[in-house]
Amino acid sequence: MRLATRDNGTPDGELVAVSADGTRFARPGPQWPNLLAAIENWRESEPELRTLIADGGAPLDPTTLRAPLPRAWQWLDGSAFQTHADLMQVAFGHDPLPFDKPLMYQGMSDPFLGPCEAVPFRSEADGIDFEGEFAVIVDRVPMGCTAAEALRHVMLIVQLNDWSLRTLAVPEMKTGFGWVQAKPACSMAPLAVTPDELGDAWQDGRVCLDLLVDWNGERVGAANGREMAFGFHDLIAHAAATRELAAGTIIGSGTVANADYATVGSSCISERRAIEIIVQGQPQTPFMRFGDRVRMEATNKGQPGPFGAIDQIVTRHVPEAF
Amino acid sequence: MRLATRDNGTPDGELVAVSADGTRFARPGPQWPNLLAAIENWRESEPELRTLIADGGAPLDPTTLRAPLPRAWQWLDGSAFQTHADLMQVAFGHDPLPFDKPLMYQGMSDPFLGPCEAVPFRSEADGIDFEGEFAVIVDRVPMGCTAAEALRHVMLIVQLNDWSLRTLAVPEMKTGFGWVQAKPACSMAPLAVTPDELGDAWQDGRVCLDLLVDWNGERVGAANGREMAFGFHDLIAHAAATRELAAGTIIGSGTVANADYATVGSSCISERRAIEIIVQGQPQTPFMRFGDRVRMEATNKGQPGPFGAIDQIVTRHVPEAF
Repeated sequence: MRLATRDNGTPDGELVAVSADGTRFARPGPQWPNLLAAIENWRESEPELRTLIADGGAPLDPTTLRAPLPRAWQWLDGSAFQTHADLMQVAFGHDPLPFDKPLMYQGMSDPFLGPCEAVPFRSEADGIDFEGEFAVIVDRVPMGCTAAEALRHVMLIVQLNDWSLRTLAVPEMKTGFGWVQAKPACSMAPLAVTPDELGDAWQDGRVCLDLLVDWNGERVGAANGREMAFGFHDLIAHAAATRELAAGTIIGSGTVANADYATVGSSCISERRAIEIIVQGQPQTPFMRFGDRVRMEATNKGQPGPFGAIDQIVTRHVPEAF
Repeated sequence: MRLATRDNGTPDGELVAVSADGTRFARPGPQWPNLLAAIENWRESEPELRTLIADGGAPLDPTTLRAPLPRAWQWLDGSAFQTHADLMQVAFGHDPLPFDKPLMYQGMSDPFLGPCEAVPFRSEADGIDFEGEFAVIVDRVPMGCTAAEALRHVMLIVQLNDWSLRTLAVPEMKTGFGWVQAKPACSMAPLAVTPDELGDAWQDGRVCLDLLVDWNGERVGAANGREMAFGFHDLIAHAAATRELAAGTIIGSGTVANADYATVGSSCISERRAIEIIVQGQPQTPFMRFGDRVRMEATNKGQPGPFGAIDQIVTRHVPEAF
């Protein structure tokens, strides 16, 4: 099942079910006005939502969609790819981080931007970077949930861009408090899908799809999600060790990265700069400029993946008059 | 104006206005079912809410109240007291942190626990500690809001206990990712109040009240909120530098601490242990045990403050059957 959110002027938007080919949509009844409401009562909502597209549907323009979950009570982003952690250590110049348990921070969960929204930033000097990721949306997870029990809480899988401001990230990281200024709102690909939509690409709590990343039309990354050192079940158990997770909590993989980066490239600019430091002694590639475009789409053995595409332009933020 | 939230079986609870003496409450109309809805449209809700108590009201038992804001889209906690930062450096054994701009992390914002709820933790070995704080609740804050403009966004002030698990905090801090496992849900005193309720105790974006902290009946802290190195306006501007803040965002002061800790004591156990390290060479005071009680109430020159009291017992978490 593929779900999306149309703009209806409300903060949470209007939930719709989308056909397998992505061309049609159908509205559920008023009981499930938005995805968050559906996730909060998934046992009842899921069977109803699954019947919808069989009944037909209206034509869908995916470029007009919002994030499938435009806001959530919690966004916990892991950093589960060893290659990404290793390269970021080079990029940021810090000591190696322990990797015996998942790295995770809590980020901004209201809003998640839509897949084709322009994304405003205050300054190019902040080091504007994208991070291609996969993430899961869970129902309520009790505190103390084990990794062995965690996968049954994965209701939906999404693809997102965790926008990052690298110039601000290094000093925030040094405080130990994690990132606030360095991590503004993320963007989400248009379709949230149930795990069965991935078929055998959903394995051991990992999204085994290639994430194609194009920056201003140039292919910069095609890394596969299977190389997570910790699966999503491990990330969920880590997050729930001392807290209950509210329904609708989103748990991220961190930037998708592969050991064979020389072949597949990178899902963020910082990794590319780290590779340049390793190979050439210093970084060459600048961060994003206003007007730059980034496109991200997961693919399954060369066929389009189930999430649709993120395709966005970076713009200069215009301050509001106070 | 003092506002509270009664339990009505919904996640957000029922918003009520409370009389100045804290003994009576009145319900607003269905337009403002909960505090989050009211904050999202404060220009309309505030004048209506202010008229309520003049009309009478029913008797209120403050010990049955939930957190005034039981969940929010965002909780950003600062660490604005230099004395707290200095002592935590001793307690945690890390290098001095830069203090030229506010320290801030994003924490769990669903749920905030009620003032008299028992608080379950998985293990005493996690180093269970309380942190007495003040916080503000803002309406929507545009990205780029300056400190000079920020105080007009402070709609309500609250008092809270930022529960912390110290054994988990040090290794999480060393990753640079901030705290997830070390920072479970916070608790909130029963009343959220408009700044005018503080009179001249609301000065320069600081809550100039003594925060009395009693642990198992012993007074351990009476620090005053005025010694923030950064006022709440600075914290709001820091938080909004690269993101818009959703209405209902809660911004915390960090643990209230004073330079004269030898006289006023501490608002958390970790500071007390740091002082013991300084004076005696090693910490003496253990962290909390199951069954321990902590009470926190702000006072204004010896008179009760406007927030009511947090009064809670720590319990052993009972895992759910999966």
